[in-house]
Parts: sequence; structure tokens; C-alpha cells
Amino acid sequence: MTRTVFYVSDGTGITAETLGHSLLTQFDLGEVQQVRVPFVDTLARAEDVARAIRRAHADDGELPLVFHTIIEPAHAVLLEQTEACVVDLFGRLVKPLEREFGLVRKRRVGRAHGMTNVETYDDRMEATNYALRHDDGGDTDYSDADLIMVGVSRSGKTPTCLYMALQFGVKAANYPLTMDDLDSCTLPPALRGQRERLFGLTIEPERLAHIREARRPGSRYAKLARCRREVSDAELLYQSFKIPHLNTTHTSVEEICTKVLHKLRLKQQLY
Amino acid sequence: MTRTVFYVSDGTGITAETLGHSLLTQFDLGEVQQVRVPFVDTLARAEDVARAIRRAHADDGELPLVFHTIIEPAHAVLLEQTEACVVDLFGRLVKPLEREFGLVRKRRVGRAHGMTNVETYDDRMEATNYALRHDDGGDTDYSDADLIMVGVSRSGKTPTCLYMALQFGVKAANYPLTMDDLDSCTLPPALRGQRERLFGLTIEPERLAHIREARRPGSRYAKLARCRREVSDAELLYQSFKIPHLNTTHTSVEEICTKVLHKLRLKQQLY
Repeated sequence: MTRTVFYVSDGTGITAETLGHSLLTQFDLGEVQQVRVPFVDTLARAEDVARAIRRAHADDGELPLVFHTIIEPAHAVLLEQTEACVVDLFGRLVKPLEREFGLVRKRRVGRAHGMTNVETYDDRMEATNYALRHDDGGDTDYSDADLIMVGVSRSGKTPTCLYMALQFGVKAANYPLTMDDLDSCTLPPALRGQRERLFGLTIEPERLAHIREARRPGSRYAKLARCRREVSDAELLYQSFKIPHLNTTHTSVEEICTKVLHKLRLKQQLY
Repeated sequence: MTRTVFYVSDGTGITAETLGHSLLTQFDLGEVQQVRVPFVDTLARAEDVARAIRRAHADDGELPLVFHTIIEPAHAVLLEQTEACVVDLFGRLVKPLEREFGLVRKRRVGRAHGMTNVETYDDRMEATNYALRHDDGGDTDYSDADLIMVGVSRSGKTPTCLYMALQFGVKAANYPLTMDDLDSCTLPPALRGQRERLFGLTIEPERLAHIREARRPGSRYAKLARCRREVSDAELLYQSFKIPHLNTTHTSVEEICTKVLHKLRLKQQLY
């Protein structure tokens, strides 16, 4: 038995989906099939969605769940007239804000992920270019870096730096710890004098070997013994130089980023 | 007069912040200062946050807004005891789901942006590596590509492809249209036979010149006349080869991605 979950929006649907995902983690729903429906901004499209909801109900035999952030009441009502469990995410939250706290509502369609703040947006794009230019030890002029990630090859540095840039506008460079660096047990020259901006990633050797094997099957680089040695040498380096570090094995890129910002006290956060 | 808005979570705070941002677009609040507070998972940390909220109230002279997704009632109540406008995002949505639709709740802390689905997560990481390898015409073996973005230099291809990968696990390559390609008015050899996977980006020449000027000040590459010509040649190419395309000038990377997925009918969406 599958249940269909719809995320419906008059904009990108990213807010509806992010929140819907989070809400789903709070319930035991068994198997679900998730459908994102962005740009529902006409009556005709709202009617299409209502039809799809009814069809999913008939096909699944289970009542669909519908999370939506549609502002226009004439469109929202078409969804609410289906038999599904329809949750108006904004409606449920905006009304209490108006009523209990006296905030004044203005109705605006689909602006949540628009380019509302051009300056912040440009910062994110600039940080993305920065991360690319300073990826994998490429450019080692770190004068503008907010932070420098270090770690052995395939420990998760690149996706973390890119997410850091795209999501938070943080300029994150990354530098790979090679066998030579690890053997010498000192900081590579490029990283000296940067200690307060360094952050180390580490990973379980088994997981690392698995990732490397997928990338270069049968290589020495992917051997478990080598992964074990690289990881333990890297951890030793972090300890010797008091570099804060994090194990990425069971941690998503979102969690890694948030934890790193938190530890290095970057961006507006409370510590 | 500034008002402080807190996004408080026992996890990364990404859900609280995403939804909070969206809700803020629905109100006229004047100037706000936003503070993200992740990993509030102890009484001591909840007490720290409550203190910070009271301090912001005293400093601003305005009642702070607090959006939270704290699951543990003993922690949440500390926030609710401040005088601020406190909105329990999950509480307000989860209770109706339980009551009206009879869904059964399980309490789980901080799993929304964890690595809940390893397979999907690995897809996203693999797609990120794919985007990097196939960035800017680097590797032109497109046999595994979900889509190939084309456009003149600095029209937004790279951030779009990376966001596509990190957020949606879509394998997006990108290929720059050079002056030579544009002069010949045919598809570059690498793109032939790929027409159904191509997507074009375009941009206002003024904005393009501005972006290029920031990158290479005073260069011929950044001259407005040259930008005008490249953009109009690229648009002509899109029309001649019936390549779907989008103007990125006033469009955020989130919007571009969602629109592209929508137009190319990629990923689970309703069309």
C-alpha cells in the first residue's frame, strides 16, 4: 500500500516540500510516493492538480496527503474540495500570527524563493565561484576565505563547500591532505598561518573505501588498509594542531554545514 | 526600529528558517535581523536562547518573532515563556494532522535534514561530482546526463547545475557557447544528437556586462556591445534549434532549477 504525498505551490514548491518532508518524519506513514507540483498559479492548473489528487486516491486506495502554500483562495479551494488530507501550510501559520500577534498580512504570490534580496543573492553566487576556484587546493590564496576545509580525498569536502556557498553565502575553500602531507605530520605550507580558519573532516575508513571503490574500482587508493591509515593520520594531525573536526560518515551535507558554521561561529547564529 | 527574528531548532534549523522566510514574505515587518539557532537539544541551550530572546526584546524595543521546530516540550516551553511572538511550526501543523486526519505521531528529534535516505543522499553526492566533472564543457560524454545547460559565459549555468545536483540529485552538465559557436550559428559538435536534453539560459546584456566586469574589470569580454551580441546570437540559436530557454536576470537559482525540471519533465512532478 502506497500513499501519495503532494507538495503544491504557486512558486517553486521548495518551502512546501522542505516543510512537508519534516512533517512526514513525525509520522509513521509506511510507503509514500512524493510528487512536487510547482507554479500552480492559474485556475486550470489548480483543476489539474485536483484531478491528479483524486486519481491518486483511486489508484492507491489510500487518502493522499496534500501540503500546499497556495495564496490565492480560489485556487486553494479546488484542492480543499478533494477528499484528501489537505494542509494549507501558510494559512495555518499566518492566521495565528495575524490574530495573536496583530501582524498585518499582505498577499504575495510565490516570492519565497525569488530573488528578494539581490545583495545576499549575489553573495551566494560569488561564494559559489569562490568555492569552485578554491576547490581541492586549486587556488591557495586564502585571504578572502571564511573557512578552509581539510581532509583526505573523498571525505566530503567539495559538496560541503558548495552547499555552504549556495545556501549560506559562505566562502569555503578546501584543501586535500595527501599521503605526503600525512607522512610529514606537519601542516602543508599553504595552510600555515590559517589555523583559526581550518576545519577538518573525517570519515569511517569502511565508508571511505566504499566511496573510493565506486570511483576507481580495484585501485590501491580504494584499499581499506590505505583508507585506514590515511584517516588515522589525518585525525592525528587534527589533534596535534587542535583543528576542530567532524565525522561525516552518518552526517548529511546540511548537517555538516550547520555544525561547521556553528563551531567556527560564522554567520548570524546564536552560540 | 529593528525586529529580531529567531529560527530555533533541535536539528540544523534549515526547515525553520526556510518556512520562516516564506512566512515573513507575507507580512510587512519593516527591518528585521534574522538569527538562526541550530542544535537546541539541551535544557541549558534552551535557557540560553530564551535569554537571547529577552535581550533582543530589550535592545530592539520590538517584540521578537520566534519560529521553532523544537520537539521536546520541556525545551519548547522555555521559549514560550518569553514575551515574544513564539510560533511552534510543527506543533501548529502536526496537531491538526493528528486530530483531523487520524495520523499517528511519533516524536523524533532533528531528523528532517539528516541522512534519512542513504540512497537518495548518495544520488545527490554523485550528481554533484557529475556536475563538477561536466562543468563548463569539461567532460563532454553526456551519456548519463539528465540535462545539458547551454549559455554564454556567466549566464548562470554553473550555480544552476550545482544546485540541481545538491538539491534534487539531477545530473546536469553545462556547455559554454563561445564566440566561435555563435558565429557559426550551428550547434557545437559536442551537443549534436542531444537536443531533447538541452536547456538554454539567457540574461539581459546589461546584467551580464555587470557580472563580467566584476570578474575581469576593463576587459573586452565585459564590454556591453559584446555582451549584447553574444546574448542575441545565443537567443537566435535557441530559436533555430527549438531549445527551451529561460532568462535568468531576475530569477533565483532555486526558481531556475524548478522551472527547468518542470519544462524538461524531470523528477517526480506533475505537469
